[in-house]
Amino acid sequence: MTYGDYEIKNGHLYISGADSVELAKEYSTPLYVMSEDVVRASCRELKGALDKYYESNGLITYASKALCIKEMCRIIDSEGLGLDAVSGGELCTAKAASFPMEKVNYHGNNKTDEEIRMGISFGVGRFVVDNKEELIRIDKIADELGKVQKVLLRITPGVDAHTHSFVKTGQIDSKFGSAIQTGAADDITDFALTLENIQIAGFHCHIGSQIFEQEPFVEAARVMLDFIDETEARTACFFTDLVLGGGFGIKYTEEDKPLSYDEILRPVLTYVKAHREKVGKKLIHLGFEPGRSIAGPAGTTLYTVGSVKEIPNIRTYVSVDGGMTDNPRYMLYGSKYTFIIANRADKKKDNIVTVCGKCCESGDMLGEGVELSEVHAGDILAVTSTGAYNYSMASNYNRIPRPAMVFVKNGEARLAVRRETYEEMCERDI
Amino acid sequence: MTYGDYEIKNGHLYISGADSVELAKEYSTPLYVMSEDVVRASCRELKGALDKYYESNGLITYASKALCIKEMCRIIDSEGLGLDAVSGGELCTAKAASFPMEKVNYHGNNKTDEEIRMGISFGVGRFVVDNKEELIRIDKIADELGKVQKVLLRITPGVDAHTHSFVKTGQIDSKFGSAIQTGAADDITDFALTLENIQIAGFHCHIGSQIFEQEPFVEAARVMLDFIDETEARTACFFTDLVLGGGFGIKYTEEDKPLSYDEILRPVLTYVKAHREKVGKKLIHLGFEPGRSIAGPAGTTLYTVGSVKEIPNIRTYVSVDGGMTDNPRYMLYGSKYTFIIANRADKKKDNIVTVCGKCCESGDMLGEGVELSEVHAGDILAVTSTGAYNYSMASNYNRIPRPAMVFVKNGEARLAVRRETYEEMCERDI
Repeated sequence: MTYGDYEIKNGHLYISGADSVELAKEYSTPLYVMSEDVVRASCRELKGALDKYYESNGLITYASKALCIKEMCRIIDSEGLGLDAVSGGELCTAKAASFPMEKVNYHGNNKTDEEIRMGISFGVGRFVVDNKEELIRIDKIADELGKVQKVLLRITPGVDAHTHSFVKTGQIDSKFGSAIQTGAADDITDFALTLENIQIAGFHCHIGSQIFEQEPFVEAARVMLDFIDETEARTACFFTDLVLGGGFGIKYTEEDKPLSYDEILRPVLTYVKAHREKVGKKLIHLGFEPGRSIAGPAGTTLYTVGSVKEIPNIRTYVSVDGGMTDNPRYMLYGSKYTFIIANRADKKKDNIVTVCGKCCESGDMLGEGVELSEVHAGDILAVTSTGAYNYSMASNYNRIPRPAMVFVKNGEARLAVRRETYEEMCERDI
Repeated sequence: MTYGDYEIKNGHLYISGADSVELAKEYSTPLYVMSEDVVRASCRELKGALDKYYESNGLITYASKALCIKEMCRIIDSEGLGLDAVSGGELCTAKAASFPMEKVNYHGNNKTDEEIRMGISFGVGRFVVDNKEELIRIDKIADELGKVQKVLLRITPGVDAHTHSFVKTGQIDSKFGSAIQTGAADDITDFALTLENIQIAGFHCHIGSQIFEQEPFVEAARVMLDFIDETEARTACFFTDLVLGGGFGIKYTEEDKPLSYDEILRPVLTYVKAHREKVGKKLIHLGFEPGRSIAGPAGTTLYTVGSVKEIPNIRTYVSVDGGMTDNPRYMLYGSKYTFIIANRADKKKDNIVTVCGKCCESGDMLGEGVELSEVHAGDILAVTSTGAYNYSMASNYNRIPRPAMVFVKNGEARLAVRRETYEEMCERDI
């Protein structure tokens, strides 16, 4: 995982060679700044690990829900990665960016008929199928379109990754997938095998988010490989693909201690390789689906401070020109971030403040107990690691337009998403 | 407060005379359905209480952040109410709906210069001013535009309304306003009086949300009236306006026991009237700012059930074609709602289920431990009291388009917001 690409020069925070204070001036705030250099470095580290430990026998698919915009699709494609899409909207974004559809895995626990039709028509490589109702509908629509659709069946392996309870998905108690332990995984496999327009390429699991350990991935691989061996023996069918999900933890604050991609992937890749050799099968085509770890560390949000309100003996509120509308993660999960005064980035952080947004809502905060240097109205406040689940989760609450986004490469910035206008927010109103 | 306007006919849920199952067919799901009849009834009850107990000496301003669309602005205007706006986007929406700007109060703890200029140019009746920085900027921009701007100063009265901790605003520890107890309220008043392009019309407070008691409003009125009396005595100035905020609780489930508007307003209006008579002053112009209580009970969301997944001995997941993208309130606050199978609305609710959305996120739920009758894929699921803070907080997470909204009056439905398209979600991408 590549981080930051930050420098401090003349007291200013530089992002991949660009002065963030100048970016704020040129593009106005709030502004999402993505380091293209960081995105590309992460893609290469991921591919590198697959090459080094698993003979390149797999595909890294970027989970685009983390940040689904055309420019990310283009960069991901140019690095040779695949893409995860979870909706018709994400499929359309990939299509609009000319992403090769055979490298798209199409997820979702409740795809509509329209979305299924779109996925098959676009020619997506794999549907990641959640349940029997979905299988029936894919089979029917594929039949109408005269196609056989490759699928991965989403399986719940019962592996409990140690992470925030809101984002756990590995347990049996999940809206996603079919559990091995309950027999549901066998049921859906057997059912899929009866469908003429469905071809099971293999199986998929996802054990959680923001995972900082290697063991859960090895354990998930063990459970899934055993399930595949048993299923192959039971059905006399053979499966080519196994996707082990994503969920690689990233650093939001100094409290987070993420592993490198090499550290995360080495044990699981080594395990899978050894297992396949032991059972006398060729290497299974492996997939991983990092989203947050590619987009997250590449992003910085820049705000302008509007007011600083010190309530004696209570706390100091620093109000910025964005908030829960461009980053709802503190409100949703209590997620912590790192804050820097971009125009005095070399100063010691000797204040503790609450950073709040401009929404007419008391809970509209970006952080409490935040360490910050001296701060005044007009300062540029930078928040790091905001590349994932910020723009993608942004709303128009309080009719606040969604910010612009620039990509920076070697010190050069270019617009990737333009700022929403007031007129656009009203244009669906009759 | 008027509720629901629901009927069950031939097993179907009717909303203000329209068959919800037919609405779902005609407009597709997810669909927000607003009862215009309910909105208008609430407006009339509010005005009625002001007429009955306070000689009509005030203005109810609809807090449009609850649901800010052109059609709501038009209906609110036609009922003679005013409007609260909290951003440039809300001002533009009101303007686009030809709302009379002199009846607009303009809120916000961190208005930008551009927004201040817009508010003054549009001719909004009152700025609700949060802090000194804002006062300085309003004074400067009003000067440039050759205007004197009427303002209300937002004061924190220190009244603690008994409500959900996330939405409390009455305490001293708030990003909003200036506290009386700390002397900040006196400071900002004295400062405002020195500014040539500012005219203090009066004061504003807001003590919280989802309040089910009368006492906090009477207590807030007592504190604010005493503050005004003391400030008038101290400064020899006179103030004409007092806004006591909103926050009237509504019924989401049977656990909520809301008061009627008459019950809430009678004690506070009676108190204010008696106080002004006692101190020998004419009635102060009173304002209240209901948002949720006007829009909330008028709204119903219709979804189509995509799959029903029973995990033995654990729980049953009912997946719908919307979720946290059109209603993030369960994820944000754990807010509870009432759920009805619209196409079998007469059946007994003898199941307990988890209703989840279609987002690729485990926490994407609309409710857990939900009472529901028998449910199958293809059923129409209605969620009640979704008129406030649903559409207004909706996102494009997972690139899911925002739903359409219809208004129903006497059994006739008409489109008020059209569904977002896939193309629209991409059109800001470069």
